[in-house]
Amino acid sequence: MASNSFGHLFRFTTWGESHGPAIGAVVDGVPPRIALTEADIQIWLDRRRPGQSRFVTQRREPDTVRIMSGVFEGVTTGTPVSLVIENMDARSKDYGDIKDKFRPGHADFTYWAKYGVRDWRGSGRASARETASRVAAGGIARKILSAAFGAPFRVRGALVQIGAHAIDRGRWDWDTVEKNPFWCPDAKMAERWEGHLDEVRKAGSSAGAIIEVVAEGVPAGLGAPVYAKLDADLASALMGINAVKGVEIGDGFAAVALPGEQAHDEMRMADNRVGFLDNHAGGILGGISTGQPIVARFAVKPTSSLPIARRGVTENGRDADVRTTGRHDPCVGIRAVPVGEAMMACVLADHWLMHKAQCG
Amino acid sequence: MASNSFGHLFRFTTWGESHGPAIGAVVDGVPPRIALTEADIQIWLDRRRPGQSRFVTQRREPDTVRIMSGVFEGVTTGTPVSLVIENMDARSKDYGDIKDKFRPGHADFTYWAKYGVRDWRGSGRASARETASRVAAGGIARKILSAAFGAPFRVRGALVQIGAHAIDRGRWDWDTVEKNPFWCPDAKMAERWEGHLDEVRKAGSSAGAIIEVVAEGVPAGLGAPVYAKLDADLASALMGINAVKGVEIGDGFAAVALPGEQAHDEMRMADNRVGFLDNHAGGILGGISTGQPIVARFAVKPTSSLPIARRGVTENGRDADVRTTGRHDPCVGIRAVPVGEAMMACVLADHWLMHKAQCG
Amino acid sequence: MASNSFGHLFRFTTWGESHGPAIGAVVDGVPPRIALTEADIQIWLDRRRPGQSRFVTQRREPDTVRIMSGVFEGVTTGTPVSLVIENMDARSKDYGDIKDKFRPGHADFTYWAKYGVRDWRGSGRASARETASRVAAGGIARKILSAAFGAPFRVRGALVQIGAHAIDRGRWDWDTVEKNPFWCPDAKMAERWEGHLDEVRKAGSSAGAIIEVVAEGVPAGLGAPVYAKLDADLASALMGINAVKGVEIGDGFAAVALPGEQAHDEMRMADNRVGFLDNHAGGILGGISTGQPIVARFAVKPTSSLPIARRGVTENGRDADVRTTGRHDPCVGIRAVPVGEAMMACVLADHWLMHKAQCG
Amino acid sequence: MASNSFGHLFRFTTWGESHGPAIGAVVDGVPPRIALTEADIQIWLDRRRPGQSRFVTQRREPDTVRIMSGVFEGVTTGTPVSLVIENMDARSKDYGDIKDKFRPGHADFTYWAKYGVRDWRGSGRASARETASRVAAGGIARKILSAAFGAPFRVRGALVQIGAHAIDRGRWDWDTVEKNPFWCPDAKMAERWEGHLDEVRKAGSSAGAIIEVVAEGVPAGLGAPVYAKLDADLASALMGINAVKGVEIGDGFAAVALPGEQAHDEMRMADNRVGFLDNHAGGILGGISTGQPIVARFAVKPTSSLPIARRGVTENGRDADVRTTGRHDPCVGIRAVPVGEAMMACVLADHWLMHKAQCG
Repeated sequence: MASNSFGHLFRFTTWGESHGPAIGAVVDGVPPRIALTEADIQIWLDRRRPGQSRFVTQRREPDTVRIMSGVFEGVTTGTPVSLVIENMDARSKDYGDIKDKFRPGHADFTYWAKYGVRDWRGSGRASARETASRVAAGGIARKILSAAFGAPFRVRGALVQIGAHAIDRGRWDWDTVEKNPFWCPDAKMAERWEGHLDEVRKAGSSAGAIIEVVAEGVPAGLGAPVYAKLDADLASALMGINAVKGVEIGDGFAAVALPGEQAHDEMRMADNRVGFLDNHAGGILGGISTGQPIVARFAVKPTSSLPIARRGVTENGRDADVRTTGRHDPCVGIRAVPVGEAMMACVLADHWLMHKAQCG
Repeated sequence: MASNSFGHLFRFTTWGESHGPAIGAVVDGVPPRIALTEADIQIWLDRRRPGQSRFVTQRREPDTVRIMSGVFEGVTTGTPVSLVIENMDARSKDYGDIKDKFRPGHADFTYWAKYGVRDWRGSGRASARETASRVAAGGIARKILSAAFGAPFRVRGALVQIGAHAIDRGRWDWDTVEKNPFWCPDAKMAERWEGHLDEVRKAGSSAGAIIEVVAEGVPAGLGAPVYAKLDADLASALMGINAVKGVEIGDGFAAVALPGEQAHDEMRMADNRVGFLDNHAGGILGGISTGQPIVARFAVKPTSSLPIARRGVTENGRDADVRTTGRHDPCVGIRAVPVGEAMMACVLADHWLMHKAQCG
Repeated sequence: MASNSFGHLFRFTTWGESHGPAIGAVVDGVPPRIALTEADIQIWLDRRRPGQSRFVTQRREPDTVRIMSGVFEGVTTGTPVSLVIENMDARSKDYGDIKDKFRPGHADFTYWAKYGVRDWRGSGRASARETASRVAAGGIARKILSAAFGAPFRVRGALVQIGAHAIDRGRWDWDTVEKNPFWCPDAKMAERWEGHLDEVRKAGSSAGAIIEVVAEGVPAGLGAPVYAKLDADLASALMGINAVKGVEIGDGFAAVALPGEQAHDEMRMADNRVGFLDNHAGGILGGISTGQPIVARFAVKPTSSLPIARRGVTENGRDADVRTTGRHDPCVGIRAVPVGEAMMACVLADHWLMHKAQCG
Repeated sequence: MASNSFGHLFRFTTWGESHGPAIGAVVDGVPPRIALTEADIQIWLDRRRPGQSRFVTQRREPDTVRIMSGVFEGVTTGTPVSLVIENMDARSKDYGDIKDKFRPGHADFTYWAKYGVRDWRGSGRASARETASRVAAGGIARKILSAAFGAPFRVRGALVQIGAHAIDRGRWDWDTVEKNPFWCPDAKMAERWEGHLDEVRKAGSSAGAIIEVVAEGVPAGLGAPVYAKLDADLASALMGINAVKGVEIGDGFAAVALPGEQAHDEMRMADNRVGFLDNHAGGILGGISTGQPIVARFAVKPTSSLPIARRGVTENGRDADVRTTGRHDPCVGIRAVPVGEAMMACVLADHWLMHKAQCG
């Protein structure tokens, strides 16, 4: 089972609850002699850190990562890298009101149905706080992939839709992504989202989002048919992020409406290499990378925690209205961007090791 | 790695190429003392069998399954169930023309890039023929789930879109699904698809499709957070089917545009049990089943094999136009319906065993 | 769980009962472009085949292996290799007498206690017949290792004790191993064993054995601390063979009585390489290979099937004497030699792939 | 791979080096609603703690365990239990002399051969200090098993041989085990060992040991044939402990010399249950528990660290004599007793969960 582990060979196991003393990850399978410092991981955690704008939760967590093992004199040793992030600003009393209530859209009822017990403080293990561990693991994955594939390799993500408001892909600019609180590649749409989210918040509502993550510089040949396909593993990685309800590769659902002769990327030789004339496939055919950018999108439902009354029930089987008064993101999709990037990096690092195992 | 195995505890391993002597699956983890005959599996294979209408490949395969182990005097013994399906109508000469060519949209190039060798006959291991093994494994999964959950349990699937033509959900009728060659729940749309697909075929084109699979009678509590979530495993299972480019749970991508107060299923007690007032979540919260129907959809791209010339390249690095003259489905999505059902059944059987392990 | 699979990356799954239609293995993770024919596997199966002397079971099985997938034009393709061996000489009626009886030393009672059902014909899945699948998988492992390590690589096994009669290690001659029906490296002892086993058989008794397996030409560095250590995996591999009750690496239990200064292999540089002055360690330190020959031994208990009356019980809970009249090996340890070799080869192939994954 | 994880369903992952800031384990698969406190784990760590007699290392470690997650209001929640043990008395300077030297019998050379880098401080990851994490995990396993099987369940261990000095089994007394610094069940032999070990230490030598671990109160039916057999998993668990070179179940190697009619435990009905008349099998047949006590033994080689000069080599390829002046156990086998108990408990907890999954 090992349901708290992710990956085949580059494999991390996470632990920790939202309001426990700390959260963390143990990352196994890391190749030796890769330069690794806490700063290499911290840089990615800082992107995900809460409290950086009024559009995300106001919980104040420094999210400082500490490497507990697996690194010696600045390089990985091949033994497990244990990462610990302390919880500093857990205000469990904010949740006292709802300790015996099941909130709509949350995992309250299902954890209770499964385990017969649950840590209700800040959603416990089901909190998006757990994703900090994934981002930390992703930092190590990036180091492995950069060491393997060099400078052309990178994984980047962007928010492409909030609520019903999608970006204009013609205005896509990666530099813009770093310059607004939404990771939005369309400067104009970023402005519009500000207004929209302010309204959403005022209304006591919340908004969903679509995130796109792209890996460049990945060679052809990564992927392990037929049940550990690169796209199947990406689907699992992204669907497993909190609040995600859909995943697409390349054209995704839009591919359905294309006629066959438009849906498939034709090929021509170029510079003595196989070149694709388009990238409908999102860089994956038959579960194996084509050498083109790997493109995935995932849909995040609107934040479940709402300050307005919703109909819920109690552990004791009584109807009860529920209001969530703790600190929350009006659009959890925003902070899912670095998580999606991290998971894509982890899947790629994992498949790189698998490829070396069988074909190296 | 075990990339040809699927599942944690209910775990099957498949083998075989499109034009080899046979294909098969070894199903491990099957509980003992479950009544099982070849007919219990054959019934599902017959639904997926090629050649049943003019809208699917004309390859004539009886797809007769043989149980080689794991069953004694009509019941499972707890030892692995080995299933073998012979390939009877493999016409490898149909593929002679393309043995050294990489076809657009196929896994030809990527298998070659990965392995440096490939069985080009009928796409080898990358052929959708492999999915017969999944359907067979799904037959066993259904027996396990029926034994566990009784009559209310069932998994059904339907085609809800071909090309740009989506069904009218108001006309959804499960009985209709069995009465047309498309597994279409909307009788009127089924007629329209006939005309559409005839045109597609005449034009030498192909069409994509969206399939919806629904499991009813699954109790609350199945799922294993946080990396073997029920939805993450479903996403992997469905994205791993040949030609799939997208997966959704419940409202999926449409959830993004809903305001928070509409996106989450409220609850009220009913008959002394927790009742949900809607099913936007598709029966899964926090990666664990809610007790409502589990609903997933997946997008299948248009068939890659086209009879018209497409630009491809050869193994030796020369540009070459490619036409596919073998027998193929104009819309591979049609035959993906029983495959999607089977994979959902397998994921549920797997999670049922996992649930018993930890919480039983 | 996947309890019928062995290995991490070079991973095989076996299926089949003693008296079913066939047994087989699916071998996953095989690197591509390795020359492989049925003869490459058959050669090892022939060594294990029953009926080759009066000291092993008289069941007549040709044990002809058939490759069903994963090989194309004489080389592996990287997809799973499915191997099938038909059962030709299953005489289930020989077992009719004991179908409802639990025999001492057999798995009859425990399978029934676990599963509540069992295939009693020829011990079903618990039969040593299953080990033919392991030998077949081992044939593929050898090809992988020979391709990787070249001519110096080989795995050999020998029987070093039957009953209380141990060989004289001073007379060890590998050529002798192939020249007697016991795989005995000590010609003189082989003669003595003939007489001893004839007596054992006449007395209606049976004898245990100790097997030693040795791998040469394995480079330093294979092994994956701390829970997939090379020696831990070997221990699992060998203890899992039918009737095995003990496993040793290098000096094994004898190391306990050595003073510390004699127990550890000292080192000196030789030819610019680290050289060990002895091999008490059996080629493994800290779970990782040292570059010296890898040496393991395992103890096989006397055959459980005895023609004399033993006290047993019935499924219905009555005392009953049991005689086994089917065909059996008076010393099952003899035919365990090729099985031990095969399992060592499989463990090494697995660790070679793991090493490439992390350190390649 | 996941080489730093142990177990299938009750699965723990350990991390940490001897002289890093801490060591720890993440325990996944723990059933919910089991009462668990730090004291439940500490009690077992205290048994393994160094510095408790002159016969073990004088390193002073309180080995205080802290539960970081997975427990809420005194009971397990079903989420991963993260355990952290700080390293308090790491004196890395003791090891400065040998930082570039490969010591005989240690994993120095092999780690370097594998990874090309190693944390030489106190043997880094290869240190027996890592076993504290196993003992902690074992504490949780015991709680699970006690909850499942009640009071009759217990796992106990004893030292049965030091050097050439084996106990007299006729004098076995479990109460005596707790009353001497060796966990010796034979009071007379314990005295003799004191003298023997004093001499060994004075001579600058070291001694090996044999440990026996016994689990009582385990029902028939645990075990998962054919590659996750209970005995195969025990063999892996025990062989994977530092310095172990051999593992036996039941009669072990001694079974080889028994005539068949004496080697197998006959059965008679007793109190309406199947009763065995002896326990040569050590409680396991066909890889499945029989309901009798499960008995395993393992051999620990003499401590590799010796204060006298031994021939070694340096990382730079020069011959060099090596003396180990750090604090070490003259007989590491002594402190392996609680480790062996813990590993047996972990294997049993794992198989209990596996049994519930398939047969529950």
